[in-house]
Amino acid sequence: MTGNSSQQATCPYVIGMDLGGTKILAAVVDGDGHIVAEAKNTTRADKGPDMVIKRLARTAREAVKNAGLPWDDIAAVGVGAPGPIDPEAGMVYTPPNLPGWEQVALGPLLSESLGLPVYVQNDVNPGTLGEYTFGAGRGARDMVGVFVGTGIGGGLILDGKLRAGARSAAGEIGHMILMAGGPVCGCGQRGCAEALASRTAIERDIEIGLSAGRESLIPKLTKQGKRPLTSSVLTAALRKGDPLVTEVMERAQWYLGLLTASIVNILDPEVVVLGGGVVESLGHEFVEPIATTARQHFILKSGASDVRIVPSALGDHAGVLGAAVHARKKACTGRVPGDE
Amino acid sequence: MTGNSSQQATCPYVIGMDLGGTKILAAVVDGDGHIVAEAKNTTRADKGPDMVIKRLARTAREAVKNAGLPWDDIAAVGVGAPGPIDPEAGMVYTPPNLPGWEQVALGPLLSESLGLPVYVQNDVNPGTLGEYTFGAGRGARDMVGVFVGTGIGGGLILDGKLRAGARSAAGEIGHMILMAGGPVCGCGQRGCAEALASRTAIERDIEIGLSAGRESLIPKLTKQGKRPLTSSVLTAALRKGDPLVTEVMERAQWYLGLLTASIVNILDPEVVVLGGGVVESLGHEFVEPIATTARQHFILKSGASDVRIVPSALGDHAGVLGAAVHARKKACTGRVPGDE
Repeated sequence: MTGNSSQQATCPYVIGMDLGGTKILAAVVDGDGHIVAEAKNTTRADKGPDMVIKRLARTAREAVKNAGLPWDDIAAVGVGAPGPIDPEAGMVYTPPNLPGWEQVALGPLLSESLGLPVYVQNDVNPGTLGEYTFGAGRGARDMVGVFVGTGIGGGLILDGKLRAGARSAAGEIGHMILMAGGPVCGCGQRGCAEALASRTAIERDIEIGLSAGRESLIPKLTKQGKRPLTSSVLTAALRKGDPLVTEVMERAQWYLGLLTASIVNILDPEVVVLGGGVVESLGHEFVEPIATTARQHFILKSGASDVRIVPSALGDHAGVLGAAVHARKKACTGRVPGDE
Repeated sequence: MTGNSSQQATCPYVIGMDLGGTKILAAVVDGDGHIVAEAKNTTRADKGPDMVIKRLARTAREAVKNAGLPWDDIAAVGVGAPGPIDPEAGMVYTPPNLPGWEQVALGPLLSESLGLPVYVQNDVNPGTLGEYTFGAGRGARDMVGVFVGTGIGGGLILDGKLRAGARSAAGEIGHMILMAGGPVCGCGQRGCAEALASRTAIERDIEIGLSAGRESLIPKLTKQGKRPLTSSVLTAALRKGDPLVTEVMERAQWYLGLLTASIVNILDPEVVVLGGGVVESLGHEFVEPIATTARQHFILKSGASDVRIVPSALGDHAGVLGAAVHARKKACTGRVPGDE
């Protein structure tokens, strides 16, 4: 074995990346799951796939530079990208929150740009894998991840194994239908969880309220109607008792409670972890009412409190850590954190 | 080993039973999964748990009598009962379609009455296990069963294994919420699949239509307003183009399509099998529109036609065959049909 391939096989460092609708995160992760350094950029999804892939490559290089490591120390890159995707081919199809993306060969293109193997996963899976390996799902046998951001993603660990699904499409929890005939979703359906309780849905409902002249602190909290409404603006408004934001957020929590109940009624997992921007800003404060609504809607009331419904422990880092675990599992030999 | 325990261990015959809201089925099943004889009685759920357990015991004895076998040839009994249940203790909690049942020790009581070991499962599991072992899911790696009767039950086989869930409560597909704030369900929630598309929901909607003077053949097809509306009456009305029944059934099919889509979006299984009274009467005719609606609502359109959405192949026998497989797995040594 040559020096280089032996180095790859033991993998001192990998890069975990998270491609979101609004931002790109990259982290250099060592063999023990520690983040050595990171980098962050906006996605600029409006500029199209080529520009986004350039920004992904730039973010990866910045993270390695921030780590003060030579590029050769990096063995592989794991990327969580919005689904639907084909993980084998590294293809991204038409994610509702990346307009203009249609069959983009993200894996091959990024690999060519970086000169490293790139492993693409549906972005709901790394977050789930990260929380399961190092976060709120640690030690459980089953965990369902529900990530509330621009969209709503999910991921399933059942009996200790990530469930990818027959077409690598499992975990699309945001497109479970909670309100037949309800509001239109980015995916073209109506009444998906994502169309009712994502940050996009929350923002839509607040904008409608503002247009209708509802009382709110939002105009004061955002300069010249700056959009999108970030999670921190929503949190600030909520903390100050904004009546419109409070109503819209409580409704979103109710839907997330029903979503959690539907998940528990079909899968009966040990733990449901709620993550994503909105949840991270508010943590337990946001999750408690969701858990209460969910438990009221469990069909099996017995042992209802044994089902843990908890906020993510890793916040923004869940996705990049999970993507790193995945890259390491694919590219490296030796023990991988989280393996049994 | 004494003759008797050796006979039990090799298990020439077991009884598989299905306790439904309206009827009880029992089948004597041999080691190859063949039904040797069966028996059937009404449940008379209105008479309370003691009477229902007496009727279960009577039905089991009748099946053995019909088989012309000595009682000693029977090694064990498997029963599918409406959930939620505790399979270890054989306890049935408060199933929405067995009014008055609260923590009934079904397993121990029936075992005492029959002098045989009794293994109770959530009734959605035997149907799924039966279809997976001998029916429409044969040869698949994953299968989700959706059974539409008085209620809606489900069952999950993932990666070749029945998923029981952390609290033995997985597969309660009828209580996934499809219409937040929708019609009240027997479970006390609103907008569950069961409240929208079960035979109970179909009947409710038809009765409301009749009360409001809607045009329908139902009064002609049922003598003196006889209720409940059986699946065969519904089928007859549908075949004759009854406008009220057609509308209500098409709506139920639409909801079942959304339910199937939600299941596929979260689990991405190979096969979804639709069974239960209504499906059995109409078969492919009933399932095709459900499959079409479901496929339109898959988030991953690619490979959508690879997801098989098919009617049950075993009909009424799925539950008793699956209950027999379960009893045999629990009580017997040697090869069990369906084992890999």
